[in-house]
Amino acid sequence: MNFSSKLLEEAVHEFAKLPGIGQKTALRLVLHLLKKEQEEVNHFGQTLIRLKQEIKHCSICHNISDQTVCSICMAPKRDKTLICVVEDARDVMAIENTNQFFGVYHVLGGLISPMNGIGPADLFIDSLVKRVESGEVKEVIMALSATMEGDTTLFYLHKRLQPSAVPLSTIARGIAFGGELEYADEVTLGRSIITRVPYTHSMIK
Amino acid sequence: MNFSSKLLEEAVHEFAKLPGIGQKTALRLVLHLLKKEQEEVNHFGQTLIRLKQEIKHCSICHNISDQTVCSICMAPKRDKTLICVVEDARDVMAIENTNQFFGVYHVLGGLISPMNGIGPADLFIDSLVKRVESGEVKEVIMALSATMEGDTTLFYLHKRLQPSAVPLSTIARGIAFGGELEYADEVTLGRSIITRVPYTHSMIK
Repeated sequence: MNFSSKLLEEAVHEFAKLPGIGQKTALRLVLHLLKKEQEEVNHFGQTLIRLKQEIKHCSICHNISDQTVCSICMAPKRDKTLICVVEDARDVMAIENTNQFFGVYHVLGGLISPMNGIGPADLFIDSLVKRVESGEVKEVIMALSATMEGDTTLFYLHKRLQPSAVPLSTIARGIAFGGELEYADEVTLGRSIITRVPYTHSMIK
Repeated sequence: MNFSSKLLEEAVHEFAKLPGIGQKTALRLVLHLLKKEQEEVNHFGQTLIRLKQEIKHCSICHNISDQTVCSICMAPKRDKTLICVVEDARDVMAIENTNQFFGVYHVLGGLISPMNGIGPADLFIDSLVKRVESGEVKEVIMALSATMEGDTTLFYLHKRLQPSAVPLSTIARGIAFGGELEYADEVTLGRSIITRVPYTHSMIK
Protein backbone atom coordinates (compact mmCIF):
# COMPACT_ATOMS: atom_id res chain seq x y z
CA MET A 1 0.00 0.00 0.00
CA ASN A 2 1.08 3.56 -0.77
CA PHE A 3 0.85 5.52 2.46
CA SER A 4 0.87 9.29 2.34
CA SER A 5 2.12 9.45 5.93
CA LYS A 6 4.72 7.52 7.94
CA LEU A 7 2.66 7.89 11.11
CA LEU A 8 -0.37 6.43 9.37
CA GLU A 9 1.70 3.55 8.01
CA GLU A 10 3.10 2.76 11.44
CA ALA A 11 -0.33 2.75 13.09
CA VAL A 12 -1.76 0.50 10.35
CA HIS A 13 1.24 -1.80 10.73
CA GLU A 14 0.65 -2.08 14.50
CA PHE A 15 -3.04 -2.96 14.05
CA ALA A 16 -2.25 -5.44 11.27
CA LYS A 17 -0.08 -7.41 13.74
CA LEU A 18 -3.21 -8.38 15.68
CA PRO A 19 -4.71 -11.80 14.87
CA GLY A 20 -7.38 -11.77 12.17
CA ILE A 21 -6.75 -8.15 11.17
CA GLY A 22 -5.29 -7.52 7.71
CA GLN A 23 -3.94 -4.33 6.14
CA LYS A 24 -7.30 -3.12 4.84
CA THR A 25 -9.14 -3.65 8.14
CA ALA A 26 -6.23 -2.03 10.00
CA LEU A 27 -6.46 1.03 7.75
CA ARG A 28 -10.20 1.26 8.37
CA LEU A 29 -9.66 1.11 12.15
CA VAL A 30 -6.90 3.74 12.06
CA LEU A 31 -8.97 6.13 9.93
CA HIS A 32 -11.84 5.59 12.37
CA LEU A 33 -9.58 6.54 15.30
CA LEU A 34 -8.34 9.62 13.39
CA LYS A 35 -11.91 10.93 13.32
CA LYS A 36 -12.21 10.63 17.12
CA GLU A 37 -11.24 13.31 19.63
CA GLN A 38 -7.63 13.45 20.84
CA GLU A 39 -8.81 12.63 24.36
CA GLU A 40 -10.57 9.44 23.27
CA VAL A 41 -7.56 8.19 21.33
CA ASN A 42 -5.27 9.00 24.28
CA HIS A 43 -7.55 7.01 26.54
CA PHE A 44 -7.43 4.04 24.17
CA GLY A 45 -3.63 4.12 24.00
CA GLN A 46 -3.21 4.61 27.75
CA THR A 47 -5.65 1.80 28.54
CA LEU A 48 -3.55 -0.66 26.52
CA ILE A 49 -0.31 0.47 28.19
CA ARG A 50 -1.88 0.31 31.69
CA LEU A 51 -3.44 -3.08 30.95
CA LYS A 52 -0.08 -4.68 30.32
CA GLN A 53 1.65 -2.78 33.15
CA GLU A 54 -0.85 -3.28 35.95
CA ILE A 55 -2.66 -6.51 35.26
CA LYS A 56 -1.89 -9.42 37.61
CA HIS A 57 -2.50 -13.14 37.63
CA CYS A 58 -4.18 -14.73 40.64
CA SER A 59 -1.53 -16.46 42.78
CA ILE A 60 -3.91 -19.38 43.43
CA CYS A 61 -5.69 -20.10 40.11
CA HIS A 62 -3.55 -18.01 37.67
CA ASN A 63 -6.63 -16.30 36.24
CA ILE A 64 -6.32 -12.69 35.05
CA SER A 65 -6.99 -10.39 38.00
CA ASP A 66 -6.53 -6.86 39.35
CA GLN A 67 -5.37 -8.15 42.74
CA THR A 68 -2.89 -10.87 43.73
CA VAL A 69 -5.85 -13.15 44.50
CA CYS A 70 -8.76 -13.03 42.04
CA SER A 71 -12.37 -12.29 42.98
CA ILE A 72 -13.44 -15.91 42.40
CA CYS A 73 -10.79 -17.39 44.73
CA MET A 74 -11.61 -14.67 47.30
CA ALA A 75 -15.40 -15.20 47.25
CA PRO A 76 -16.54 -17.04 50.41
CA LYS A 77 -19.55 -18.47 48.53
CA ARG A 78 -17.45 -20.43 46.04
CA ASP A 79 -16.85 -24.11 46.76
CA LYS A 80 -13.07 -24.48 47.20
CA THR A 81 -13.31 -28.28 47.19
CA LEU A 82 -14.30 -28.30 43.51
CA ILE A 83 -11.64 -27.24 40.97
CA CYS A 84 -12.36 -26.74 37.26
CA VAL A 85 -9.19 -26.95 35.15
CA VAL A 86 -9.21 -24.78 31.98
CA GLU A 87 -6.76 -23.71 29.29
CA ASP A 88 -6.97 -19.92 29.62
CA ALA A 89 -8.85 -16.93 31.05
CA ARG A 90 -11.31 -16.94 28.16
CA ASP A 91 -12.58 -20.37 29.24
CA VAL A 92 -13.12 -19.07 32.78
CA MET A 93 -15.27 -16.28 31.36
CA ALA A 94 -17.21 -18.72 29.15
CA ILE A 95 -17.99 -20.99 32.11
CA GLU A 96 -18.82 -18.04 34.40
CA ASN A 97 -21.31 -16.84 31.80
CA THR A 98 -23.24 -20.11 32.14
CA ASN A 99 -23.95 -19.45 35.84
CA GLN A 100 -23.81 -23.22 36.37
CA PHE A 101 -20.49 -23.61 38.18
CA PHE A 102 -19.89 -22.56 41.78
CA GLY A 103 -16.47 -24.05 42.46
CA VAL A 104 -13.09 -22.46 41.74
CA TYR A 105 -10.81 -22.60 38.70
CA HIS A 106 -7.27 -23.48 37.76
CA VAL A 107 -5.93 -21.83 34.59
CA LEU A 108 -3.17 -23.91 32.97
CA GLY A 109 -2.04 -21.09 30.67
CA GLY A 110 -2.11 -23.37 27.61
CA LEU A 111 -2.13 -27.02 26.60
CA ILE A 112 0.70 -29.51 26.20
CA SER A 113 1.71 -29.28 22.54
CA PRO A 114 5.01 -30.88 21.48
CA MET A 115 4.42 -29.46 17.95
CA ASN A 116 4.58 -25.91 19.34
CA GLY A 117 7.29 -26.74 21.88
CA ILE A 118 4.98 -26.43 24.90
CA GLY A 119 5.75 -29.03 27.58
CA PRO A 120 4.26 -29.62 31.05
CA ALA A 121 6.92 -27.36 32.61
CA ASP A 122 5.57 -24.37 30.62
CA LEU A 123 2.13 -24.71 32.20
CA PHE A 124 0.81 -24.19 35.75
CA ILE A 125 0.61 -27.93 36.43
CA ASP A 126 2.82 -28.19 39.52
CA SER A 127 0.69 -25.65 41.36
CA LEU A 128 -2.44 -27.64 40.42
CA VAL A 129 -0.91 -30.84 41.81
CA LYS A 130 -0.04 -28.96 45.03
CA ARG A 131 -3.60 -27.59 45.34
CA VAL A 132 -5.09 -31.05 44.85
CA GLU A 133 -2.64 -32.70 47.24
CA SER A 134 -3.41 -30.15 49.96
CA GLY A 135 -6.30 -32.48 50.88
CA GLU A 136 -9.15 -29.97 50.67
CA VAL A 137 -10.17 -30.85 47.11
CA LYS A 138 -13.00 -33.35 46.56
CA GLU A 139 -13.26 -33.29 42.75
CA VAL A 140 -11.31 -31.97 39.76
CA ILE A 141 -13.32 -31.18 36.59
CA MET A 142 -11.31 -31.09 33.37
CA ALA A 143 -12.81 -28.54 30.95
CA LEU A 144 -10.24 -28.77 28.16
CA SER A 145 -10.71 -28.60 24.39
CA ALA A 146 -11.52 -31.90 22.66
CA THR A 147 -8.38 -31.68 20.53
CA MET A 148 -5.15 -33.66 20.32
CA GLU A 149 -3.50 -31.12 22.68
CA GLY A 150 -6.44 -31.21 25.08
CA ASP A 151 -6.41 -35.01 25.25
CA THR A 152 -2.63 -35.11 25.73
CA THR A 153 -2.89 -32.64 28.59
CA LEU A 154 -5.80 -34.56 30.08
CA PHE A 155 -3.80 -37.81 30.01
CA TYR A 156 -0.77 -36.16 31.60
CA LEU A 157 -2.83 -34.49 34.34
CA HIS A 158 -4.57 -37.81 35.05
CA LYS A 159 -1.18 -39.45 35.61
CA ARG A 160 0.06 -36.62 37.83
CA LEU A 161 -3.11 -36.42 39.93
CA GLN A 162 -3.64 -40.19 40.34
CA PRO A 163 -1.57 -40.48 43.58
CA SER A 164 -3.88 -38.00 45.33
CA ALA A 165 -6.89 -40.29 44.65
CA VAL A 166 -9.14 -37.26 44.09
CA PRO A 167 -12.00 -38.06 41.61
CA LEU A 168 -11.39 -36.62 38.16
CA SER A 169 -14.21 -35.79 35.71
CA THR A 170 -14.45 -34.19 32.28
CA ILE A 171 -17.23 -31.99 30.93
CA ALA A 172 -19.80 -33.87 28.82
CA ARG A 173 -19.25 -34.12 25.07
CA GLY A 174 -22.11 -34.67 22.66
CA ILE A 175 -24.58 -33.02 20.34
CA ALA A 176 -25.08 -29.36 21.24
CA PHE A 177 -28.47 -28.17 22.47
CA GLY A 178 -30.38 -26.97 19.45
CA GLY A 179 -27.99 -28.86 17.20
CA GLU A 180 -29.39 -31.02 14.42
CA LEU A 181 -28.19 -34.60 14.15
CA GLU A 182 -27.56 -34.50 10.41
CA TYR A 183 -25.03 -31.68 10.80
CA ALA A 184 -23.10 -33.30 13.66
CA ASP A 185 -19.73 -34.87 12.83
CA GLU A 186 -19.45 -38.68 12.97
CA VAL A 187 -17.07 -38.78 15.96
CA THR A 188 -19.30 -36.63 18.15
CA LEU A 189 -22.46 -38.45 17.10
CA GLY A 190 -20.85 -41.88 17.56
CA ARG A 191 -19.51 -40.97 21.01
CA SER A 192 -22.82 -39.46 22.05
CA ILE A 193 -24.47 -42.85 21.40
CA ILE A 194 -21.80 -44.79 23.34
CA THR A 195 -21.92 -42.36 26.29
CA ARG A 196 -25.74 -42.12 26.30
CA VAL A 197 -27.43 -41.14 29.56
CA PRO A 198 -30.71 -42.33 31.14
CA TYR A 199 -33.58 -39.99 30.27
CA THR A 200 -34.93 -37.78 33.06
CA HIS A 201 -37.25 -34.82 32.93
CA SER A 202 -34.88 -32.54 34.82
CA MET A 203 -32.35 -32.57 31.96
CA ILE A 204 -34.56 -30.50 29.71
CA LYS A 205 -35.08 -27.06 31.17
CA MET B 1 -19.56 -11.00 29.98
CA ASN B 2 -18.14 -11.68 33.42
CA PHE B 3 -14.72 -10.05 33.58
CA SER B 4 -12.32 -11.07 36.31
CA SER B 5 -10.49 -7.74 36.00
CA LYS B 6 -11.59 -4.12 35.58
CA LEU B 7 -8.50 -3.36 33.49
CA LEU B 8 -9.30 -6.22 31.14
CA GLU B 9 -12.90 -5.08 30.88
CA GLU B 10 -11.87 -1.53 30.03
CA ALA B 11 -9.43 -2.64 27.33
CA VAL B 12 -12.05 -4.94 25.77
CA HIS B 13 -14.56 -2.10 25.90
CA GLU B 14 -12.15 0.23 24.07
CA PHE B 15 -11.49 -2.30 21.29
CA ALA B 16 -15.20 -3.12 20.97
CA LYS B 17 -15.85 0.56 20.11
CA LEU B 18 -13.99 0.10 16.82
CA PRO B 19 -16.13 -0.60 13.74
CA GLY B 20 -16.70 -4.28 12.99
CA ILE B 21 -15.20 -5.48 16.28
CA GLY B 22 -17.54 -7.11 18.79
CA GLN B 23 -16.98 -8.14 22.40
CA LYS B 24 -15.60 -11.59 21.59
CA THR B 25 -13.13 -10.34 18.98
CA ALA B 26 -12.10 -7.51 21.30
CA LEU B 27 -11.38 -10.02 24.07
CA ARG B 28 -9.29 -12.13 21.69
CA LEU B 29 -7.25 -9.07 20.66
CA VAL B 30 -6.71 -7.95 24.27
CA LEU B 31 -5.60 -11.44 25.39
CA HIS B 32 -3.22 -11.48 22.40
CA LEU B 33 -1.71 -8.16 23.51
CA LEU B 34 -1.39 -9.46 27.08
CA LYS B 35 0.90 -12.20 25.82
CA LYS B 36 3.21 -9.65 24.15
CA GLU B 37 6.17 -7.91 25.82
CA GLN B 38 5.51 -4.69 27.75
CA GLU B 39 7.65 -2.79 25.25
CA GLU B 40 5.60 -3.92 22.25
CA VAL B 41 2.31 -2.98 23.91
CA ASN B 42 3.74 0.42 24.92
CA HIS B 43 4.77 1.01 21.33
CA PHE B 44 1.28 0.16 20.12
CA GLY B 45 -0.34 2.54 22.61
CA GLN B 46 2.15 5.34 21.95
CA THR B 47 1.79 4.99 18.16
CA LEU B 48 -1.95 5.59 18.43
CA ILE B 49 -1.51 8.61 20.68
CA ARG B 50 1.20 10.10 18.44
CA LEU B 51 -0.85 9.38 15.31
CA LYS B 52 -3.69 11.57 16.49
CA GLN B 53 -1.38 14.23 17.97
CA GLU B 54 1.07 14.69 15.12
CA ILE B 55 -0.76 13.81 11.94
CA LYS B 56 -1.54 16.70 9.60
CA HIS B 57 -3.76 17.24 6.62
CA CYS B 58 -2.27 18.64 3.42
CA SER B 59 -3.17 22.35 3.14
CA ILE B 60 -3.74 21.97 -0.62
CA CYS B 61 -5.55 18.64 -1.13
CA HIS B 62 -6.55 17.80 2.50
CA ASN B 63 -5.03 14.32 2.25
CA ILE B 64 -3.47 12.77 5.39
CA SER B 65 0.16 13.84 5.60
CA ASP B 66 3.17 14.22 7.91
CA GLN B 67 3.93 17.73 6.59
CA THR B 68 1.71 20.74 5.89
CA VAL B 69 1.88 19.90 2.17
CA CYS B 70 1.63 16.20 1.24
CA SER B 71 4.19 14.30 -0.81
CA ILE B 72 1.86 14.09 -3.83
CA CYS B 73 1.23 17.85 -3.99
CA MET B 74 4.98 18.46 -3.46
CA ALA B 75 6.14 16.04 -6.20
CA PRO B 76 7.35 18.01 -9.27
CA LYS B 77 6.47 15.04 -11.53
CA ARG B 78 2.74 15.13 -10.75
CA ASP B 79 0.48 16.97 -13.19
CA LYS B 80 -1.05 19.86 -11.24
CA THR B 81 -3.50 20.64 -14.04
CA LEU B 82 -5.39 17.38 -13.43
CA ILE B 83 -7.33 17.09 -10.15
CA CYS B 84 -9.00 13.87 -9.00
CA VAL B 85 -11.76 14.51 -6.45
CA VAL B 86 -12.26 11.71 -3.87
CA GLU B 87 -14.22 11.18 -0.67
CA ASP B 88 -11.40 10.33 1.75
CA ALA B 89 -7.74 9.34 2.18
CA ARG B 90 -8.53 5.66 1.60
CA ASP B 91 -9.63 6.45 -1.96
CA VAL B 92 -6.34 8.28 -2.59
CA MET B 93 -4.46 5.14 -1.51
CA ALA B 94 -6.65 2.91 -3.68
CA ILE B 95 -6.03 5.05 -6.78
CA GLU B 96 -2.29 5.40 -5.99
CA ASN B 97 -2.07 1.60 -5.84
CA THR B 98 -3.26 1.38 -9.46
CA ASN B 99 -0.22 3.38 -10.70
CA GLN B 100 -2.48 4.78 -13.43
CA PHE B 101 -2.99 8.36 -12.24
CA PHE B 102 -0.31 11.05 -12.31
CA GLY B 103 -2.29 14.14 -11.46
CA VAL B 104 -3.07 15.48 -7.98
CA TYR B 105 -5.99 14.89 -5.61
CA HIS B 106 -8.62 16.77 -3.70
CA VAL B 107 -10.01 15.00 -0.63
CA LEU B 108 -13.55 16.19 0.20
CA GLY B 109 -13.58 14.60 3.66
CA GLY B 110 -16.97 12.98 3.08
CA LEU B 111 -20.01 13.15 0.82
CA ILE B 112 -23.09 15.36 1.00
CA SER B 113 -25.62 13.38 3.04
CA PRO B 114 -28.71 15.18 4.34
CA MET B 115 -29.69 11.96 6.16
CA ASN B 116 -26.53 12.17 8.28
CA GLY B 117 -26.63 15.96 8.53
CA ILE B 118 -23.59 16.50 6.28
CA GLY B 119 -24.00 19.53 4.05
CA PRO B 120 -21.63 21.15 1.52
CA ALA B 121 -20.25 23.46 4.22
CA ASP B 122 -18.94 20.43 6.17
CA LEU B 123 -16.75 19.34 3.23
CA PHE B 124 -13.67 20.86 1.57
CA ILE B 125 -15.67 22.12 -1.40
CA ASP B 126 -14.84 25.84 -1.24
CA SER B 127 -11.12 25.10 -1.42
CA LEU B 128 -11.74 22.87 -4.48
CA VAL B 129 -13.66 25.66 -6.23
CA LYS B 130 -10.77 28.06 -5.45
CA ARG B 131 -8.19 25.59 -6.84
CA VAL B 132 -10.19 25.10 -10.03
CA GLU B 133 -10.82 28.84 -10.46
CA SER B 134 -7.11 29.61 -10.10
CA GLY B 135 -6.91 28.96 -13.85
CA GLU B 136 -4.19 26.29 -13.80
CA VAL B 137 -6.56 23.30 -13.84
CA LYS B 138 -7.43 21.67 -17.20
CA GLU B 139 -9.62 18.77 -16.01
CA VAL B 140 -11.38 17.62 -12.86
CA ILE B 141 -12.00 13.86 -12.50
CA MET B 142 -14.76 12.87 -10.09
CA ALA B 143 -13.94 9.55 -8.42
CA LEU B 144 -16.88 9.32 -6.01
CA SER B 145 -18.90 6.30 -4.90
CA ALA B 146 -21.84 5.35 -7.14
CA THR B 147 -24.31 5.87 -4.31
CA MET B 148 -27.08 8.34 -3.59
CA GLU B 149 -24.63 10.47 -1.58
CA GLY B 150 -21.97 10.25 -4.30
CA ASP B 151 -24.43 11.32 -6.99
CA THR B 152 -25.76 14.19 -4.86
CA THR B 153 -22.21 15.43 -4.25
CA LEU B 154 -21.40 15.05 -7.96
CA PHE B 155 -24.43 17.10 -8.93
CA TYR B 156 -23.59 19.83 -6.41
CA LEU B 157 -19.93 20.01 -7.48
CA HIS B 158 -21.00 20.18 -11.12
CA LYS B 159 -23.15 23.22 -10.35
CA ARG B 160 -20.38 24.90 -8.33
CA LEU B 161 -17.65 24.26 -10.91
CA GLN B 162 -19.70 25.12 -14.01
CA PRO B 163 -18.74 28.87 -14.01
CA SER B 164 -15.04 27.96 -14.30
CA ALA B 165 -15.74 26.07 -17.58
CA VAL B 166 -13.13 23.42 -16.68
CA PRO B 167 -14.03 20.00 -18.19
CA LEU B 168 -15.48 17.58 -15.63
CA SER B 169 -15.27 13.78 -16.00
CA THR B 170 -16.21 10.79 -13.84
CA ILE B 171 -14.43 7.45 -13.61
CA ALA B 172 -15.94 4.73 -15.82
CA ARG B 173 -18.65 2.49 -14.35
CA GLY B 174 -19.27 -0.98 -15.72
CA ILE B 175 -18.58 -4.67 -15.33
CA ALA B 176 -15.38 -5.27 -13.35
CA PHE B 177 -12.42 -6.91 -15.07
CA GLY B 178 -12.66 -10.63 -14.43
CA GLY B 179 -16.32 -10.19 -13.47
CA GLU B 180 -18.88 -12.56 -14.93
CA LEU B 181 -21.93 -11.07 -16.60
CA GLU B 182 -24.43 -13.34 -14.87
CA TYR B 183 -23.36 -12.09 -11.42
CA ALA B 184 -23.49 -8.39 -12.31
CA ASP B 185 -26.44 -6.38 -11.02
CA GLU B 186 -29.02 -5.16 -13.55
CA VAL B 187 -28.26 -1.44 -13.14
CA THR B 188 -24.53 -1.86 -13.78
CA LEU B 189 -25.08 -4.23 -16.70
CA GLY B 190 -27.76 -2.00 -18.24
CA ARG B 191 -25.61 1.10 -17.90
CA SER B 192 -22.57 -0.70 -19.31
CA ILE B 193 -24.54 -1.41 -22.49
CA ILE B 194 -25.76 2.19 -22.81
CA THR B 195 -22.26 3.62 -22.20
CA ARG B 196 -20.51 1.04 -24.44
CA VAL B 197 -17.14 2.05 -25.92
CA PRO B 198 -15.60 1.29 -29.36
CA TYR B 199 -13.38 -1.80 -29.24
CA THR B 200 -9.60 -1.23 -29.48
CA HIS B 201 -6.71 -3.58 -28.79
CA SER B 202 -5.03 -1.21 -26.33
CA MET B 203 -7.84 -1.62 -23.79
CA ILE B 204 -6.95 -5.19 -22.98
CA LYS B 205 -3.58 -5.42 -21.32
